[in-house]
Amino acid sequence: MKNPQLNKHGELQHLLTTEGLPAAIVRGILDRAATFLDAADGHEIKKVPLLHGKSVFNVFFENSTRTRTTFEIAAKRLSADVVNLNIGSSSTSKGETLLDTVDNLCAMHADMFVVRHAQSGAAHFIARHVAPDVHVINAGDGRHAHPTQALLDMFTIRHYKKEFHNLRVAIVGDVLHSRVARSQIHALTTLGVPEVRVIAPKTLLPTMVENLGVHVYHDMAQGLREVDVVLMLRLQNERMAGALLPSAQEYFKYYGLTQEKLALAKSDAIVMHPGPMNRGIEIDSSVADGAHSVILSQVTFGIAVRMAVMSMLAGKAQ
Amino acid sequence: MKNPQLNKHGELQHLLTTEGLPAAIVRGILDRAATFLDAADGHEIKKVPLLHGKSVFNVFFENSTRTRTTFEIAAKRLSADVVNLNIGSSSTSKGETLLDTVDNLCAMHADMFVVRHAQSGAAHFIARHVAPDVHVINAGDGRHAHPTQALLDMFTIRHYKKEFHNLRVAIVGDVLHSRVARSQIHALTTLGVPEVRVIAPKTLLPTMVENLGVHVYHDMAQGLREVDVVLMLRLQNERMAGALLPSAQEYFKYYGLTQEKLALAKSDAIVMHPGPMNRGIEIDSSVADGAHSVILSQVTFGIAVRMAVMSMLAGKAQ
Amino acid sequence: MKNPQLNKHGELQHLLTTEGLPAAIVRGILDRAATFLDAADGHEIKKVPLLHGKSVFNVFFENSTRTRTTFEIAAKRLSADVVNLNIGSSSTSKGETLLDTVDNLCAMHADMFVVRHAQSGAAHFIARHVAPDVHVINAGDGRHAHPTQALLDMFTIRHYKKEFHNLRVAIVGDVLHSRVARSQIHALTTLGVPEVRVIAPKTLLPTMVENLGVHVYHDMAQGLREVDVVLMLRLQNERMAGALLPSAQEYFKYYGLTQEKLALAKSDAIVMHPGPMNRGIEIDSSVADGAHSVILSQVTFGIAVRMAVMSMLAGKAQ
Repeated sequence: MKNPQLNKHGELQHLLTTEGLPAAIVRGILDRAATFLDAADGHEIKKVPLLHGKSVFNVFFENSTRTRTTFEIAAKRLSADVVNLNIGSSSTSKGETLLDTVDNLCAMHADMFVVRHAQSGAAHFIARHVAPDVHVINAGDGRHAHPTQALLDMFTIRHYKKEFHNLRVAIVGDVLHSRVARSQIHALTTLGVPEVRVIAPKTLLPTMVENLGVHVYHDMAQGLREVDVVLMLRLQNERMAGALLPSAQEYFKYYGLTQEKLALAKSDAIVMHPGPMNRGIEIDSSVADGAHSVILSQVTFGIAVRMAVMSMLAGKAQ
Repeated sequence: MKNPQLNKHGELQHLLTTEGLPAAIVRGILDRAATFLDAADGHEIKKVPLLHGKSVFNVFFENSTRTRTTFEIAAKRLSADVVNLNIGSSSTSKGETLLDTVDNLCAMHADMFVVRHAQSGAAHFIARHVAPDVHVINAGDGRHAHPTQALLDMFTIRHYKKEFHNLRVAIVGDVLHSRVARSQIHALTTLGVPEVRVIAPKTLLPTMVENLGVHVYHDMAQGLREVDVVLMLRLQNERMAGALLPSAQEYFKYYGLTQEKLALAKSDAIVMHPGPMNRGIEIDSSVADGAHSVILSQVTFGIAVRMAVMSMLAGKAQ
Repeated sequence: MKNPQLNKHGELQHLLTTEGLPAAIVRGILDRAATFLDAADGHEIKKVPLLHGKSVFNVFFENSTRTRTTFEIAAKRLSADVVNLNIGSSSTSKGETLLDTVDNLCAMHADMFVVRHAQSGAAHFIARHVAPDVHVINAGDGRHAHPTQALLDMFTIRHYKKEFHNLRVAIVGDVLHSRVARSQIHALTTLGVPEVRVIAPKTLLPTMVENLGVHVYHDMAQGLREVDVVLMLRLQNERMAGALLPSAQEYFKYYGLTQEKLALAKSDAIVMHPGPMNRGIEIDSSVADGAHSVILSQVTFGIAVRMAVMSMLAGKAQ
């Protein structure tokens, strides 16, 4: 089956998921992202004209100021024209179909759509229908995928750990509802991480999660032992209300990352979180702000990674 | 009486309505719009610096993501600075008068206002009060006018039919509540279309509509016979709730455009719709997506037409 | 104690309040603002590349379309990239702390934050936590301060009165709840205005207001006598509902600015208002639109003053 993310030359046409994304393309994105960061401190981002004259439409069917902002600033640093559309409150409420909305936006000659949607598969659906010279980036679809988040996580890991082939990585928390976790697992596997662990209560793990090539732990003490990287997941507050979890206190006791638990990991382990954090629920403040935390570097690198993806998609000849 | 849209040299000062707009100016807008479309395929739109350093304020007292987006992208392709203001949720709710709001925005040195308002006449009112070097574009006021929609429709007709003097055009649907229909009728008449028809149930036609120079039909089969162009109107969902219409099914049966009914028009007839479409209510999907439909071309041409209007207004010497 | 607005060289690092702002810096801002206004008519504003490549984040925890627009247009005239964030409806509702939100925005490499917040002290709090090369402008925090409003008022006064050392200035209305009044009083005092009066009913004055160096009047006729400048304050509609005021009619009778009352001021007095105005409550329409009113000049000068502040902050070498 044809990979819907690649064109006939095997180049990136859309970024929809990290699943099935060739390792060479993942590495290409990370390499390009590095070029947008200043060599001196590794954090400063420069403005470049790579997308001058191009139009990027941020099409958010689900509101997310933070994610929209990261794409907006990435596109503007590439000198693109950016148009923000909160579709939730717009045409769909007028009875228009998603496909009509997309066709209309295409007819306005957007060069790229950044799509956030509550339904899994929405970005794929849109990518199948756009014109051949239009590119789609999935900015999160349902529980399915959030590839730019996973890619910025890979960039962060590579920045601090240099290599992937010798790493032990643990993903902790609500894997069941997390598009971030799915995208991370695929990216880590693709890049050759030999041991990916997931740590969660049974109620927050998908059935057959082992089929993704991960090792399952229900106990933090065992799961964190000797890991190089701890990827924390955000616990949606609404999970507390349901039958999945007893209480925030209980959750924190067993699965919240504290300094005591983190001490079981390697001494140079790094701690990551996609944000926004629930301090005192999935992560203790002393860890979030501690020496092992690289959470804010993730945000900075996220701009560079999104610039890399956008410029690889729309900067190339069609 | 002085035409409020023209300056003392007879040039376009504001675009408020197609009513009374000289044919030479309408043709001038269409000609200029064509220059923004690539000669090769007639659809690609280029970025130009005609409004560099100018400020365009999209002032939407009534929310419309789609219309706002078309103006935003048109202005950005002209290299203007664009500021979006959703006024509905802002100063007017603080008790400020419309005139004070407008005076304030003028004092910020906007060069152009794109105004959407639920009240008929709002754009005219604002145009009367702005400084002499400020331009107003009506992006839809109540049931009154939506001139850029009508102009992009004219551009689309000319693109496919070349001439206006030999055309038979039918406007179908809720003419009563439609600012689009009013603006279309005036534009078609101005450009010399010899036969403009309106097709609608009596409850959805304004009284004395014949005074606009149109032929009235209540029967689709008769009204569509031998027409070159079919202009469908959007049926507002809220009309169903009232006493004006029996039901959506009933409406579709009599006034929905199907392939069967369209077969009565000329074999090369084109079908247009301002969007967003209610598929299965005013138009059948097979027609919307069929060979006669030029609905998505309308959207593309809409960007070029809005660029043309904006550059004619704010690009000229004052 | 170190002034949190200045860097170690005594230059402006943040603009948080007019309190304690050195007179030389205030005058420097006013002087620079003048350079952004055309010499000919004193009102035209030019586009300049001083912030090209810089990112300005308008972070509004409290919605204000008007104020946000003035900063957005100022930043765009300086050629900055502008990102608007309405945080009220975003991360804070996801349980994220203000500090985490700010840290995240910093990590996206904003060069400047324009902050509006309902809590007094929010901008100071943020300024204490941003990186050394990031600048914060307070766009209004609770009842505390609104420094750019006060600075544009100072610019307007200087434009019309040339000097400050010989002026009698009256501030009229709801001083108790007004961040504008506080910032005006500090700015006027700093610039050497010998007599600043506040005119208000006792219920709308802070206790110990005299300690700010102002003269208190409860009677308009006495307070307005021989003043050069009348600074009207907006009366929040919600005050009417409470026990502080009898009724809008009663308020207008005693504290609304009418032509009759204004006649007690100097014959060349100017009238100012920060907007949006409640006509017929704190100010009569004949005064708002009359010969003494410079209210719309304030808006124009506000863009220039905000450009001046932004370019002084982010244009300088770090």
